[in-house]
Amino acid sequence: MARSDGRADDELREITIQRGFQQHPAGSVLVSFGQTTVLCAASVTEGVPRWRQGSGLGWLTAEYAMLPSATHTRSDRESVKGRVGGRTHEISRLVGRALRAAIDLRALGENTIQLDCDVLQADGGTRTAAITGAYVALADAVTWLRHHKRLADPQPLSCSIAAVSVGVVDGRVRLDLPYEEDSRAEVDMNVVATDTGTLVEVQGTGEGATYTRATLDAMLDSALAGCARLTELQTAALAEPYPGELP
Amino acid sequence: MARSDGRADDELREITIQRGFQQHPAGSVLVSFGQTTVLCAASVTEGVPRWRQGSGLGWLTAEYAMLPSATHTRSDRESVKGRVGGRTHEISRLVGRALRAAIDLRALGENTIQLDCDVLQADGGTRTAAITGAYVALADAVTWLRHHKRLADPQPLSCSIAAVSVGVVDGRVRLDLPYEEDSRAEVDMNVVATDTGTLVEVQGTGEGATYTRATLDAMLDSALAGCARLTELQTAALAEPYPGELP
Amino acid sequence: MARSDGRADDELREITIQRGFQQHPAGSVLVSFGQTTVLCAASVTEGVPRWRQGSGLGWLTAEYAMLPSATHTRSDRESVKGRVGGRTHEISRLVGRALRAAIDLRALGENTIQLDCDVLQADGGTRTAAITGAYVALADAVTWLRHHKRLADPQPLSCSIAAVSVGVVDGRVRLDLPYEEDSRAEVDMNVVATDTGTLVEVQGTGEGATYTRATLDAMLDSALAGCARLTELQTAALAEPYPGELP
Amino acid sequence: MARSDGRADDELREITIQRGFQQHPAGSVLVSFGQTTVLCAASVTEGVPRWRQGSGLGWLTAEYAMLPSATHTRSDRESVKGRVGGRTHEISRLVGRALRAAIDLRALGENTIQLDCDVLQADGGTRTAAITGAYVALADAVTWLRHHKRLADPQPLSCSIAAVSVGVVDGRVRLDLPYEEDSRAEVDMNVVATDTGTLVEVQGTGEGATYTRATLDAMLDSALAGCARLTELQTAALAEPYPGELP
Amino acid sequence: MARSDGRADDELREITIQRGFQQHPAGSVLVSFGQTTVLCAASVTEGVPRWRQGSGLGWLTAEYAMLPSATHTRSDRESVKGRVGGRTHEISRLVGRALRAAIDLRALGENTIQLDCDVLQADGGTRTAAITGAYVALADAVTWLRHHKRLADPQPLSCSIAAVSVGVVDGRVRLDLPYEEDSRAEVDMNVVATDTGTLVEVQGTGEGATYTRATLDAMLDSALAGCARLTELQTAALAEPYPGELP
Amino acid sequence: MARSDGRADDELREITIQRGFQQHPAGSVLVSFGQTTVLCAASVTEGVPRWRQGSGLGWLTAEYAMLPSATHTRSDRESVKGRVGGRTHEISRLVGRALRAAIDLRALGENTIQLDCDVLQADGGTRTAAITGAYVALADAVTWLRHHKRLADPQPLSCSIAAVSVGVVDGRVRLDLPYEEDSRAEVDMNVVATDTGTLVEVQGTGEGATYTRATLDAMLDSALAGCARLTELQTAALAEPYPGELP
Repeated sequence: MARSDGRADDELREITIQRGFQQHPAGSVLVSFGQTTVLCAASVTEGVPRWRQGSGLGWLTAEYAMLPSATHTRSDRESVKGRVGGRTHEISRLVGRALRAAIDLRALGENTIQLDCDVLQADGGTRTAAITGAYVALADAVTWLRHHKRLADPQPLSCSIAAVSVGVVDGRVRLDLPYEEDSRAEVDMNVVATDTGTLVEVQGTGEGATYTRATLDAMLDSALAGCARLTELQTAALAEPYPGELP
Repeated sequence: MARSDGRADDELREITIQRGFQQHPAGSVLVSFGQTTVLCAASVTEGVPRWRQGSGLGWLTAEYAMLPSATHTRSDRESVKGRVGGRTHEISRLVGRALRAAIDLRALGENTIQLDCDVLQADGGTRTAAITGAYVALADAVTWLRHHKRLADPQPLSCSIAAVSVGVVDGRVRLDLPYEEDSRAEVDMNVVATDTGTLVEVQGTGEGATYTRATLDAMLDSALAGCARLTELQTAALAEPYPGELP
Repeated sequence: MARSDGRADDELREITIQRGFQQHPAGSVLVSFGQTTVLCAASVTEGVPRWRQGSGLGWLTAEYAMLPSATHTRSDRESVKGRVGGRTHEISRLVGRALRAAIDLRALGENTIQLDCDVLQADGGTRTAAITGAYVALADAVTWLRHHKRLADPQPLSCSIAAVSVGVVDGRVRLDLPYEEDSRAEVDMNVVATDTGTLVEVQGTGEGATYTRATLDAMLDSALAGCARLTELQTAALAEPYPGELP
Repeated sequence: MARSDGRADDELREITIQRGFQQHPAGSVLVSFGQTTVLCAASVTEGVPRWRQGSGLGWLTAEYAMLPSATHTRSDRESVKGRVGGRTHEISRLVGRALRAAIDLRALGENTIQLDCDVLQADGGTRTAAITGAYVALADAVTWLRHHKRLADPQPLSCSIAAVSVGVVDGRVRLDLPYEEDSRAEVDMNVVATDTGTLVEVQGTGEGATYTRATLDAMLDSALAGCARLTELQTAALAEPYPGELP
Repeated sequence: MARSDGRADDELREITIQRGFQQHPAGSVLVSFGQTTVLCAASVTEGVPRWRQGSGLGWLTAEYAMLPSATHTRSDRESVKGRVGGRTHEISRLVGRALRAAIDLRALGENTIQLDCDVLQADGGTRTAAITGAYVALADAVTWLRHHKRLADPQPLSCSIAAVSVGVVDGRVRLDLPYEEDSRAEVDMNVVATDTGTLVEVQGTGEGATYTRATLDAMLDSALAGCARLTELQTAALAEPYPGELP
Repeated sequence: MARSDGRADDELREITIQRGFQQHPAGSVLVSFGQTTVLCAASVTEGVPRWRQGSGLGWLTAEYAMLPSATHTRSDRESVKGRVGGRTHEISRLVGRALRAAIDLRALGENTIQLDCDVLQADGGTRTAAITGAYVALADAVTWLRHHKRLADPQPLSCSIAAVSVGVVDGRVRLDLPYEEDSRAEVDMNVVATDTGTLVEVQGTGEGATYTRATLDAMLDSALAGCARLTELQTAALAEPYPGELP
């Protein structure tokens, strides 16, 4: 049974990575996984939160959010509801944790990097697109810090980070699910991996179904291959000169 | 004394209006006034709020917000703070009021149009860019409703709406202030006008200074000329065929 | 067509200004515009907010609110709803901005003046009554500060401030609208002016209608005449000795 | 040791009860116990809350609040803080409970009476002044309902309600404590009683001290005599014709 | 008319007091009054709130809450509702006030004791069980502080505290009401007393009924006898060696 | 290198499962994994949330929370902070998802089961203890529903559910981590599995480290063996007669 968008089961959607989308943040990346579009900004602040002052360590944190107009049917604005929903919290924590795996906070020095991942258009896989884009924004922010001589050590990034979704749909293991597949997947897994193929985070969930270890293994194979391809695309994007002048 | 970006006192910044930026809303416009960029979406819902049901009248409302990464220094997310700030409330109300002046709610029928104006990058004049872009998104949403035969009357728009800021900077009346001018303006005025030059909203504020009626008149002259130019650009943008397929 | 309360189109309602209504604040004024009654208090605190410390500048801020029992139909209490509504925010900001135009914050020294405008009874024009009354409370608070030798400069007030509403009702420009007129006005404008007739704030809104520059001019004429009369009444009220002992 | 205001230990402060202070609510009373001033409004709504519909019973509820400018030092606005404090909650519940003791909710029919007690000036005993004033506002609201033939039974009030504070100060049992005494009282008691001298609520608290049953008895003697005097003043106030026209 | 659980009118339910229920807090007591079960923890923090620093005085505060599953019908979680209800606030304040009557805050030194009373199962009288259990937890926390030599004076407890409910049910004065009686009581009173029989707090409320002073006296007699019995049980529980090792 | 509590690397802590801890909920289980203690209640409500009415499907949802006194250092109460934290949200969602995997919502009929997992004492692994205990409470609630003939089909449970944590500590894969190990684990994984050894949820996180697929496999081996042992303990607990009378 073919995928509705004609892709092979182990094929990513079209990926685009546009650096320098915004002027003000030290890193700003517009990333697309097919129709899913996320604006990832990395803002640098001098100093760290109070509980961390004087430790010599930096800090990195992330917030994920969705524009009301990003979804098929408009969703209510969390600022108006006056509270951040459970799903938003969960993904914000995931993004922060994933990117902290790439950075040596001692080398960062007492600086804070705030990652903001705002989904402009949602078509499945927003959290994995967010992580993949946020890594590129983070890399640009680190370059900016190095350029301004504000790092404790010039190489705080120990690896690169990419993420992709994989799932079981129509009884088949498929990579990088769009909303149409995601909403009817029996199993849904998000994998965050480094450029050397080690794992940062694995979250696999049966959706009204359970799954065997053999299925888990097949999903991991597909996801790790997908992450390797995303790593190449990140590397290529970062090899280009910074568009426009540095912020 | 010349403006830092070289413009004449009565000259607009470079204006771009990109329709169809998002797929899901019935209208979606990315508007730029120089470095200020606002994503304006018009989402259509069948039916009206409870207090309006059975009236035969439609409803139009608006929400304005700013991405944390849009500003020179990152600003805190209102969803995380758990409350919408005064400035956000005030602008949301202004945008809704301004656009309701353009639409005959009886002709709209019992449909709700929700305008979302999310500032992706802020460099002064975000509220006037939001109104100007929202009008184009609204026009596209009305076309979509007409195409789906959901209007009570086929022509609910009675006029078009544009808005611009004007102020007194360095002792001179200047149009369309960027942040650098806005932040040190002695007087700041926002004008919302129709395509026939009548007024929808005038808000003029002395910032630590007061101003004479002569200054008020000069500012209105400049703003109305600016709105007329914006109306031409809106008309030109709407004369193009809709990019991609209709949502 | 005559006004329902028999006034001429350019006539104010009966205005009363009662100083010293409360004991504790440095200034406390009960102001009435016809049936609209607002209690305006000016409380003085030593010191300024954290972001302003050490600047040598004082601070003035305002909060506007409405008693639940003030309106024709009881309105819900914002403290119980857990959030301040958009209209409340907007008016609070307006009152603060308007009164800051009258005071030299350097002359005030590092003191904070908090204005509280609580509407005891609402019959249209609550925000303009609030501004007009708040100026008198502010003047008494300044006197109190001078008496206690806490001003950096003995004359921090550079002008007096008054405000009035004006609108188009039944096709005619009318001054100081009560609720019955306000609720059906085609255009509604609030004007804040100084004792020398210069403008502090002009907010003119078409309510489901737009208006011409000629109408704007006629409304301004009427409003400025109204403000001049209010200034006289403020001056007369402040010429009386302070009722009771100073707080 | 004499009281600072010269009163005898068992003497009330000067009490004033002004009916018809606001136009819109069915009952509106400005009550003063010395310098403590509370505006008590009784608003009538047709119908009852959802959980009570169809029961044939009416409902009465109360909210108590304090203007920021009412206290010696300005207090923060609960709407701005976004939450109602513990003390406010506690007093609101007390006022509602106290007044429900006076009314037969079956005789009230499916109407809701909302009592709003807003403290305009605080000098001790605000909750007991609120209850005493709220009874008079409630009586006027019941008259209004009877006049509009909306009662299930014409006499829903089974008794009248008054309240007073009493405490141990300087080792002596004293009635109706002003702030200066209240803030240093060793024991503090609030008593709500009916016109026949039966008890509705007794709340006695040792403040950093404990007290004997003999002290409890002496405080009750004083408070019940005070309530009897307040009942006379309520009766006299209600015997006057309603000031102005009925709302 | 007999009580449904067969008790005499002046008889307590079965009382159990289990110390050392949790490992981490300095005091942790599981107290049961019949089917009502409350977990009372006393946590010690070095230092006092900011407004108290440098005073040489300690601080004691309390929070009361109910598990959603504690009640006959599940109740909503206050954290999810985003606000603490009026009843919760009121009882938290009562518990704190009651226990502060037992402790000399100067002798405590600049330490804070936080009492948490979490109702695991509710069957009437949860606030009085909470106070009675909290005293035992407080006594253990004081022992812990003495053992760690952190007290300013070795004997900060001036008395012991117990509390019980009493009410008029079926026309009879009855002690320690379970839910079945409490929900239909005509009068309901909570009494907090010391081991010498002096009063800390008396709160008596007519529930849709009023009551005479004779009834008040009878209720106090019964409650004070109940408190005396509870004091014996607290003393016996504290006479046992601490179960397990000290936290 | 031995574990501080002397266990083998693949050994569970002492597990206890006490049914019928509370009287009111249809299922109530106190579960302990060593010093971690969680009270798991399953409350049944007739009907389903509004968005699900008429579907013939039941609903199951979960909330997880921690008593302030459960942790080594007291943690603030989320109800008092007015918002549920990210970690709480995330675990609540996990528990609900995990248990929904065990139940056929069509067989449940239009009933709602609310699981409340309240941590009374925390020493690592609270979420996995919560899931393991919640399954037993759910099984009792299903028995209760069957007994009251309210199920659409008598066997809605398709499998049993257990969960355990596993991690890499001191370079070794270890099962069921207490706080002391959890806080310094390099990798931390939670596994939810059924009684047939299929997977419901796998969440593996590198904490400042990344991990290989070989490590992932070793952790899964250990966790699945642990879940099998927990399943046996759940089965044994459920084989006992219900303690006391059914709720």
